[in-house]
Amino acid sequence: VVNVGDDLVLHGLTICPDLDTITYTLAGLNNDELGWGLRGESWRVMQELEDLGGESWFRLGDRDLATHLYRSERLRQGATKTEVARELAAHFNLAVALLPVTDDPVATEFLTTEGRLTFQDYFVRRRHDIVVSAIEIVGAAEATLSASARAAIVNADRLVIAPSNPLISIDPILQVPGVRELIRERASDVIAVSPLINGEALKGPADRLMRELGYETSVLGVADFYEGLVGTWVIDEADRAHADDLRARGVSVEVTTTIMADPENARRLAKVITS
Amino acid sequence: VVNVGDDLVLHGLTICPDLDTITYTLAGLNNDELGWGLRGESWRVMQELEDLGGESWFRLGDRDLATHLYRSERLRQGATKTEVARELAAHFNLAVALLPVTDDPVATEFLTTEGRLTFQDYFVRRRHDIVVSAIEIVGAAEATLSASARAAIVNADRLVIAPSNPLISIDPILQVPGVRELIRERASDVIAVSPLINGEALKGPADRLMRELGYETSVLGVADFYEGLVGTWVIDEADRAHADDLRARGVSVEVTTTIMADPENARRLAKVITS
Repeated sequence: VVNVGDDLVLHGLTICPDLDTITYTLAGLNNDELGWGLRGESWRVMQELEDLGGESWFRLGDRDLATHLYRSERLRQGATKTEVARELAAHFNLAVALLPVTDDPVATEFLTTEGRLTFQDYFVRRRHDIVVSAIEIVGAAEATLSASARAAIVNADRLVIAPSNPLISIDPILQVPGVRELIRERASDVIAVSPLINGEALKGPADRLMRELGYETSVLGVADFYEGLVGTWVIDEADRAHADDLRARGVSVEVTTTIMADPENARRLAKVITS
Repeated sequence: VVNVGDDLVLHGLTICPDLDTITYTLAGLNNDELGWGLRGESWRVMQELEDLGGESWFRLGDRDLATHLYRSERLRQGATKTEVARELAAHFNLAVALLPVTDDPVATEFLTTEGRLTFQDYFVRRRHDIVVSAIEIVGAAEATLSASARAAIVNADRLVIAPSNPLISIDPILQVPGVRELIRERASDVIAVSPLINGEALKGPADRLMRELGYETSVLGVADFYEGLVGTWVIDEADRAHADDLRARGVSVEVTTTIMADPENARRLAKVITS
């Protein structure tokens, strides 16, 4: 069940960065050097666009662009984001279903010292280097949880909250009406992997944003944020000292290496989560 | 003053084939081998899109795509087609102003034996190989002649009607309210180059369409179509026999080689037109 709060329309194209990044990564096509986009990417269009004086701060590779052209045309034909995600997953031979939490428009926005910023303006253009006083998930309250995302949350053997940024990758999912309640009902089946290790995010602004928005930057702060939703916490060896504090809150705790430095480590972590 | 009846939205992108073709050609960047698009083009995005199962019948090269991304984003920012055309012309160092006849949406459509077809569906997908019973310039009657196109028509030293397809490249311009009247008032300053030579179009379906829609397929048929709008006709040596018939209608006639087989011939024709 994937966040769509990062989605944007740029150059007339509907771009779904979270869906695409997960799709490319699961397909083994992610660009390790860049940390985003596709392997073996080329930049012909972006180079020309830059020459034209167009908006080129959001880098779109030639291969990646095909995904956005495809999605944009399918949406215009009346397909939903859910249907397009299914088509792309089939094309890339993914074994799992990637479900946008909603087919309605949702936009994560940041109130900052320089005013309101869109997600990509904050994240890419400003490289998340600006003080945030509040995050708003515009449209979330009016959005409808998609039927397939609902069915997945209700019927899955267990629910895993990935070690993504709680405030900007997971919260836009939780804020869609119904999601938080459905997860709460199944809290004993919910396993969350802490996105903070020793108080820090491996990448991205999770620690900084939590601090700026008044959360403790530790596994305990993250646990506060997910209060009532999680049955089992998976934390890193580095945070072993917090295990008893967590257990005192009535949750199970697994301590392991949570850094997915390579596929082998990722596999090991997945085994802990699914065992 | 350029036709926008061919314009389309595809993959979320606003594409203006006539404006772009003229821009690329005047910039000396046209792809002679293909007969459309840009020189030195590559097809990375289109190849990927085809692999994805996307709509790939309308071929968009990587360099060309940058133009469409640029225009689409500028239009979304509130710019007009006229402004974007001016920006692109400046980028490509064009010495002339290319003016979309209107900033409003206009769509040339074809009534055929297989129903109503959009311009590109007729022209590109069906390769104009289908019987047409009528052409409709949807939106033309409600469109507003742009201020700069109006000024150009009113103030130009002379008006040249290019040897384009009268029915689908020139008529969508003439059907915008005001254009026909403004040109008629200046008919003595209007020079038209016949698009038919010996009853045939050099390329494209002009002759076939004229026949199907009941026009004589000759310079006389074309002259009938532009009745009252033209002061001087430029016809090819091959049509010298029609010169007196044309003159009998009260217009001047220049007979010359009108095939622009190479830049030298094009230059020579331009000299005849501007002398």
